[in-house]
Parts: sequence; structure tokens; C-alpha cells
Amino acid sequence: MKIPPVKGTRDFYPPDMAVRNFIVDGWKEVSLRNGFEEYDGPIFEYLKIFQIKSGDEIAEQLFSLTDRGGRELAIRPEITPTLARMVNQQINSLPRPIKWFSVPRLCRAERPQKGRLREFFQWNVDIIGVDDVLADAETIFCAIDYLREAGLTPDDIVVKISSRKMLAAVLKSIGIDKSKLDGLYAVLDKRNKLPDEAFEETLEKQLPDKAKRQRVLELMNAESIEQIEQMFGAQGAFDELKQLMLLLNKMAVGDYCKFDPGIVRGLAYYTGIVYEIYDRADQLRAIGGGGRYDDLLKQFGGPAIPATGFGIGDCILGILLEEKGLLKPKPKELDYFVAYVNENYKGMAVELAVKLRSKGLIADFSYKAGKLSKQLKLASESNAKKCIIIGDEFKNNELVIKDMGTGEQKLVKVDEFLSRPESF
Amino acid sequence: MKIPPVKGTRDFYPPDMAVRNFIVDGWKEVSLRNGFEEYDGPIFEYLKIFQIKSGDEIAEQLFSLTDRGGRELAIRPEITPTLARMVNQQINSLPRPIKWFSVPRLCRAERPQKGRLREFFQWNVDIIGVDDVLADAETIFCAIDYLREAGLTPDDIVVKISSRKMLAAVLKSIGIDKSKLDGLYAVLDKRNKLPDEAFEETLEKQLPDKAKRQRVLELMNAESIEQIEQMFGAQGAFDELKQLMLLLNKMAVGDYCKFDPGIVRGLAYYTGIVYEIYDRADQLRAIGGGGRYDDLLKQFGGPAIPATGFGIGDCILGILLEEKGLLKPKPKELDYFVAYVNENYKGMAVELAVKLRSKGLIADFSYKAGKLSKQLKLASESNAKKCIIIGDEFKNNELVIKDMGTGEQKLVKVDEFLSRPESF
Repeated sequence: MKIPPVKGTRDFYPPDMAVRNFIVDGWKEVSLRNGFEEYDGPIFEYLKIFQIKSGDEIAEQLFSLTDRGGRELAIRPEITPTLARMVNQQINSLPRPIKWFSVPRLCRAERPQKGRLREFFQWNVDIIGVDDVLADAETIFCAIDYLREAGLTPDDIVVKISSRKMLAAVLKSIGIDKSKLDGLYAVLDKRNKLPDEAFEETLEKQLPDKAKRQRVLELMNAESIEQIEQMFGAQGAFDELKQLMLLLNKMAVGDYCKFDPGIVRGLAYYTGIVYEIYDRADQLRAIGGGGRYDDLLKQFGGPAIPATGFGIGDCILGILLEEKGLLKPKPKELDYFVAYVNENYKGMAVELAVKLRSKGLIADFSYKAGKLSKQLKLASESNAKKCIIIGDEFKNNELVIKDMGTGEQKLVKVDEFLSRPESF
Repeated sequence: MKIPPVKGTRDFYPPDMAVRNFIVDGWKEVSLRNGFEEYDGPIFEYLKIFQIKSGDEIAEQLFSLTDRGGRELAIRPEITPTLARMVNQQINSLPRPIKWFSVPRLCRAERPQKGRLREFFQWNVDIIGVDDVLADAETIFCAIDYLREAGLTPDDIVVKISSRKMLAAVLKSIGIDKSKLDGLYAVLDKRNKLPDEAFEETLEKQLPDKAKRQRVLELMNAESIEQIEQMFGAQGAFDELKQLMLLLNKMAVGDYCKFDPGIVRGLAYYTGIVYEIYDRADQLRAIGGGGRYDDLLKQFGGPAIPATGFGIGDCILGILLEEKGLLKPKPKELDYFVAYVNENYKGMAVELAVKLRSKGLIADFSYKAGKLSKQLKLASESNAKKCIIIGDEFKNNELVIKDMGTGEQKLVKVDEFLSRPESF
């Protein structure tokens, strides 16, 4: 009887854990060098906080539970509601701007498929309290800073950028009522995810007027900001987007970025700049995405405070890094492996190994004396830098130290070695 | 309207997150130097795996949920069942001994109180495939190696050690049937947690025979292994425990350890050596505990493989470290803060900061020019090592670099600085 993990979840055996750590450690390092501080919230929250503004798709995918007190809870499917809640709670004492990141474990009851699991890790980077488009540029830079550091080039990935402010202005100029926008955004977001025919059918349901629909399709097919500006007018609605593109060029990441009016984002809370990151070959789902959400904190009962940020999950990213040969998990390593030639020296081997550990060195030993060659093989498999061999020289208070790189061996006094192990 | 986190859970604002990372990073470092590899499982599992052998207390504290497919799931209250499941799944391919550690997030629907929360982090260290008591000694050493490294002395903490094998032999010698042991262990485990009278009442229910009960109380009050041996005989049942104590002395952690027949452990799956770690002043709940569980893998449908390990949570440990002044979270740090004297230089400040980041340096800037003194204050609050000041010298392609430690300032060429920032 073998019990599998629950469908859509993963077991992280040491080699898998090393891959996860490689990704998460990279996220953390780049967040810190970009001036962000780490935060986290609980794995579950009151159910209602995920229903405030996340949009129907996420609300349908909740793992919900009821506690003994009858409270309705849910495992977090995203961390942005938690972030909004936390910031609102300490709004008067937090120094601004708030530049925070997190690497939460998230759960969504989706149908598991390639790169989409029911449990995953997501890198979240947010700036709260800055309405300057520079904050949008900085978060996008931070995402690219990581992806570039990981070895991905503009030939591998692209950040597709648009703006809901621009969309709203253009849709207004077409004559679409503001009250229809939320529903329409949800449809437009499906544009790159559905076949043309299916997309147009869905669009027709939201927008029965054929002429208006035609204009929307023209918008979605536009190739540049300038083209849309010429087609629709809507003066001023494009300045922010243009400024963002200039900033990204100044930040030397312009070649990773591209305007794409098809980017709308599925979550209901976005209000301005929106973007999604894709593999350039367009073979995979989005690697991540984000944007500006200036109304969310207010909707969570706080003051109106501008905010912008992104999330990048570990699943699609992991697939892409693997495809490109860029997964470099840290292998197991030892400073010392302590071998012993027979059971009489076992106690000494243990004593020596734990002494080295207490000095901050990574040390291990075998539970059985066995053959020395077998122990040396184990040392080599554990990537030990050095192997200490306890043999009959120990009667003269001496040890053999073998350098596993060069194969060189030397005899040293036990006490001398223990007083300064790093120098042998 | 301020929305709090769910009762018994915590929000980790950056200062709290720094404390959590300080603890968790310490656990990871000591695990690695003791030769353990990291693993993890999913946050939720099939409900049934927590009902196999954990004992009633944990089974009552589960956060359970049902997914859309009608599967009964639960958020993990401990990681040992996951560990048993994972090891069994790959039993034929995993090299042995298995020396693994994990730092899982766990949830238990307990009544929240000091040091006991509904969500917490627990350091788990296990050795699977070794029946030698040396493996028990090594895991105990690993726990102490961390606690000692954190600054806790034998005056601060004590590892109280006993053995279920010894208990079983002594209880057998008293005439208690094997079938009564599980129920009796659950009662004996309460001995240090209940007032004497309440404990004796509970014991009476499990063990109505007054003479036998008297003998059990004598056992629980014994002060040494030798005393129990004299009182109850049960030849051979004490050898393992004695050997463990010798090994812990050899490992130079004997002064942290103490035999205590009152240690039984609440979980049903323990089979041999058991231990709990307490503050020496006995003011707090257990910091952690563990022991040998040789039957668990078999109960999970695998072969009979010996196993031993412990768990230490972050809550009580955090309280103790704080009380002793041993919490040393890493403060926010910057290599560079980039200040600018007026808005004209803002673009340059951004460009410079992101260039430094791309070189792996931690750099930040202010979103508003404001007063230079205010920016320097911000730099100082962020523990910046150096502050770059972009002022009118920039027209000559020069920057001011201020050492925030010494206060020393120098003028350098922009290009020279960017080609090797670390040398200024």
C-alpha cells in the first residue's frame, strides 16, 4: 500500500527541495537587493476576504473550511488580500513607501495540469503608497532583475504590458458604459487564452452591439500605443504607459518588454498598468503577472492608498528554467566525512564529527564501519571536501586527512587538528 | 473597519518575519552541518493519514476540509505522517540511512494560549533506517547543537529523557497487560501537565488496581535509571537508555540531558527512547520533543524500518530566546542608498540604483527628492553602508560617495564608480 500525495500537490524529496530552494532563494536575494523587506501572513484567512475583490475565478477555486467555532475560513489562493488587510491594520505606523515581498505557499482548487497545481509557491513584490509610475517600473524591473540573473534573456521571455486606464478611456470613447467594464475585462482577459472564434462568441454575449465589438477587436489587435492613440484619440490616457516604457528603457530592461493591448489580467482589483510575463516562444502559460491596484486597500476598509505589484509562481518558471538548463540546485556538501577502519574507532569518529559540527563545520560519518573503500565512496557521493580517516595511527594520537579533490593525504595530531581544523 | 488575522494565527510584518527567519535559518544551518538534507510535503493531506497513528489529541485538532471531488482532506498538524508516506513511496530507491530535516508550517485547532497557536513552524529532524541508539543520540545532539549555538546553556534548558521500551518492561513486571499500554501512556504523559490529584484520578480510571497504581507512581517518581532497575528488575530493559546517556556525554552535551521517567510523549507512535526539551526554570510548556518510532512506516503500509526524530516549534522557543535576550533578527541593510539633490537627477538616481542591483549590490533610493538631510536620514535608518549623492557635480560626470560609518565623503567619476563600485 503506497499512499500518494493529494492530487495536484507535490512531495519535495531532497532533490526537489533543492530545486525549490534554488528558486525561492533567488527570489529572496533579488527582492532584498531591490530594497524590499519580507513579510508573510497566515496560511488561512476568513473566507470573506477572498470574496471582496479577487474576482469570481479565484473565489470558485477556494479550499474553504469551517472551524469548531463555526468561522468560515479558506486556505489563501493569493496573498494580496492578506497584504491589504495587514497594511490597513497598521496604516498609521508603517513608514511609507511600503516596499514588501513575500514567497507564500498558495492553494487553488483548480484542475491540475502542466504548470498548474493545487499548491504552489508564488513570489510577490509590492510597493504601496506611491502613485508615481516609477513604482510600476521598479516592480517590473525587480521581476526582470531576477529572471535575467537566473540566465533568461529577451529571447527567452517577454513582459507584455498594457493599462486598464488606457483601456477604460478607449472603451469610453467607443461608447461603452463604465458599469460594463468589469465584465468586459474578464472577457478580454481570455483573448490570448481562447481560440479566436470562442473568444468572439464570449465577447458577443458581453457586447451585443456589432459595431462596438468591431472597435474592441481593432483595439485588441493594435500593435503599438501610437496606433491606438491615432485610432481612438483618448488624449492623455497613454502618457503613463509611454512614461513606463521610457523608464524601463532607462533601467536597461526595455528589450524584455513589449506593449500588448491583449493584456487585461483576470483579477478584478487592477486599476492601471497591467502586465504578464510569458516565454517568448509562447509555449507555456504566463510565468507571472501584476499591475496597479489603487482601490484595493480602500475596499478592505482602509484609506485610498495607491499600490502596485506582481506575482510569479514556481511551476511555469521551474519548467522554463529546466528547459533552458538554468536550474542549478545546490548539491549536498560536506566539509568533512569522518571514516573509521573498524568498530573500535566508531565512538571516536562520532566524537570528532560532532566536535567539528559544533565549530560550525558540516560533518558526517557512517553508522557502520564497513570497508574503508565504501566509506570513501560515501564521502565522495556527499561531495565531502575532506575525509578524516581514523585508523591505527590513532593509537599515536594521529589522524589521516585526505583531500578529496587532490587525493593528497597527510598525518596530523588529533589535538592540533581539533584546535584549528580549518588550517589542515 | 480593520480585519484581524484568524484567531490563533500570526501576521508576520517585516520585523516579525526577521525573527521567524532568524529562528528558521538557524534550524536549517545546524541541520545541514549535522548532515541532514531538507524535504517538505504538501500543506494538506488525505485526512486518514493523520488518523492512522497520531493519537486522539491530534486527530481532534485537525483543520479538515472536503474538496470538490468529495475527498476528505486536512491541513497537516505534524509532518511525521507525511514523512512516513514519502519514505514508503520511494523505499527501494532512497539511499539509507535517511537523514532528513524539514521546517513545515503546521496547523492545529487548539485553544490559543501563550506559546500555543493554531499555526506555527516546527523544526523536524529524523533518521530512518538505523536501529542503533547512536541515531537517537545524534538527533538529540542536533537539537542541542542548535540550542547551544543560539546561546542557551544547561542552566537555561534541559532534555528530559526516558524510554517506552523501559516503561513497557517495568509495567509488564508490575503485571500490566500489553493491551493496556497505549491507554496508560496517554495518561502517564499528563503527569507533568496535571496537578497531582487530577493526575491520580485519571490514572485510577485507567488502572483501578490500587497496588499496581502505587507501583506506577513509584516508577514515575524515581530519580535515576539505577533506582528503577533496583526497584523493578526487568533486566536488559535499561541498557539502551544507559548507552544513550554515555553517548550524549561523549558528544559533550551530557550536561543538557537528564533521565526523567515522567516523559512518555503524547503521540501514539513512539516505541523506544522518548524525550522532551524544557526550560530549566520550568515556566513554559515543552520547547520540543521526539523519540523512536520503529513501527510507523509499517503502519503506513511499508516495510518495518526503524526511525527516530524530533520536532521543535517556533512559539515556545521564540519566547525563551526573547526572555534570554538571544533573538538576533537580521536588520534591514543596504550597500548603497542613492540620494539626489533635486528632481532633475531623479532619473539618474534610479538608473544608478538599478545598475548597482544588477551587479548584485543592495541599493535603494527615495521616490521624492525632498531635502538631502531627509534622504540621508532614510539612508541611515536603512543601515546603508554608503550613500551616493547626485548633485551638481554630476554635470562634470562626478558623484559624491559618503561612507555612512565614518562620515567621510569623496568625489568620484561616474564611469569609474560603475565599473567597480565595490572599490569605492
